[in-house]
Amino acid sequence: MAGKVFFSVSMSLDGFIAPESMEGFIAPEERRDAPDVQRWMAQWMELQQWIFPQRFFRENLKLGEGGEEGRDNEIVRETFERTGASVMGKRMFDLGEKAWPEEAPFHTPVFVVTHEKRDPWERPGGTTCHFVNDGIETALDQARGAAGDRDVRIAGGGATILKYVNAGLIDEFTIALSPVLFGSGIRLFEGVDAGRVALEPVRAEPTQRVTHLTYAVRER
Amino acid sequence: MAGKVFFSVSMSLDGFIAPESMEGFIAPEERRDAPDVQRWMAQWMELQQWIFPQRFFRENLKLGEGGEEGRDNEIVRETFERTGASVMGKRMFDLGEKAWPEEAPFHTPVFVVTHEKRDPWERPGGTTCHFVNDGIETALDQARGAAGDRDVRIAGGGATILKYVNAGLIDEFTIALSPVLFGSGIRLFEGVDAGRVALEPVRAEPTQRVTHLTYAVRER
Repeated sequence: MAGKVFFSVSMSLDGFIAPESMEGFIAPEERRDAPDVQRWMAQWMELQQWIFPQRFFRENLKLGEGGEEGRDNEIVRETFERTGASVMGKRMFDLGEKAWPEEAPFHTPVFVVTHEKRDPWERPGGTTCHFVNDGIETALDQARGAAGDRDVRIAGGGATILKYVNAGLIDEFTIALSPVLFGSGIRLFEGVDAGRVALEPVRAEPTQRVTHLTYAVRER
Repeated sequence: MAGKVFFSVSMSLDGFIAPESMEGFIAPEERRDAPDVQRWMAQWMELQQWIFPQRFFRENLKLGEGGEEGRDNEIVRETFERTGASVMGKRMFDLGEKAWPEEAPFHTPVFVVTHEKRDPWERPGGTTCHFVNDGIETALDQARGAAGDRDVRIAGGGATILKYVNAGLIDEFTIALSPVLFGSGIRLFEGVDAGRVALEPVRAEPTQRVTHLTYAVRER
């Protein structure tokens, strides 16, 4: 049986998944202390606050030993374990190429939607990034092939996720709704084709830190 | 002991509390069948879908006998029963003046923030609307006085709620998060002073229809 196509992101209560353009975040080293970059990081950390203490997350990103082992941790682990391949946009890859540890955290094939022609980028630990030049459907087809009976995760960023949503290619998604307001930034659903996309609630699971909301996507 | 100041609204997953300007909704009778008004109504109904079948809601708005009696219904009832007085903006009042039944659904004093000077508007069943001409703080003070030890509800609309949020006058709020995407419309938190407002999760309660999320508001 083929797996599902899903995404999983942290979102502020007012609908943002990042403080604003990621350009600030992928600033060169010498800008890391600039006030705008610091502010970006502070907001980002607040949005993602629930995930950083989780044991599985910390181990997978080589952030250190220990961590929380409650339901939030299980959800991080389950999301990882269901994923047989990931798809991401070029900007998220560019960000990750600088930010991931040597042993990138996917441990599966990753398909990058890009105009750039480039040989596969192989990392220790089983992550191999393939660069796909002919669109989101081809990238998804290749990811499906690589994932076998596991699921395909559309990893991000927001613009890439939205393309898959509007193309009717997402089966379900999970949002970790964070108790924070951004006021401005990058909205997950900005430009969603609301006339086409219907949602069906699958599961809502509050933890101490966030509310994990899962919806199935249906066509209207 | 003085009560709390709260608001309680239904919000789409992408952060909207109404399809767009309410002008379409308060259209004159002859426009009720116009396609734009029909579309507005359809979206509005979808957002509020969880509340219409609830027994307490139906009884209170004289929509008829019977209805659901599960947790959603209890939440509607609890919200009503905690409310000793309401505050609303002028546009919401204008809307309600046309839409409420003769016996308006508040059964308490209501304070309308408006520039219009007008005598109190008394309805059968205990709803009396007072028109307050000197700002949101005065309206709230009067509502607090009228509410006794019960809570004050900032009833709406969105712009009025946001003024109270940004003035630091809200103690807590509840959102019925509906499984629907709007794509456009009136955002609850558009213009929120994110540098000032911090949220603390109080309760998250999923039902069959929506997820009821309650947050306390703190100053940063």
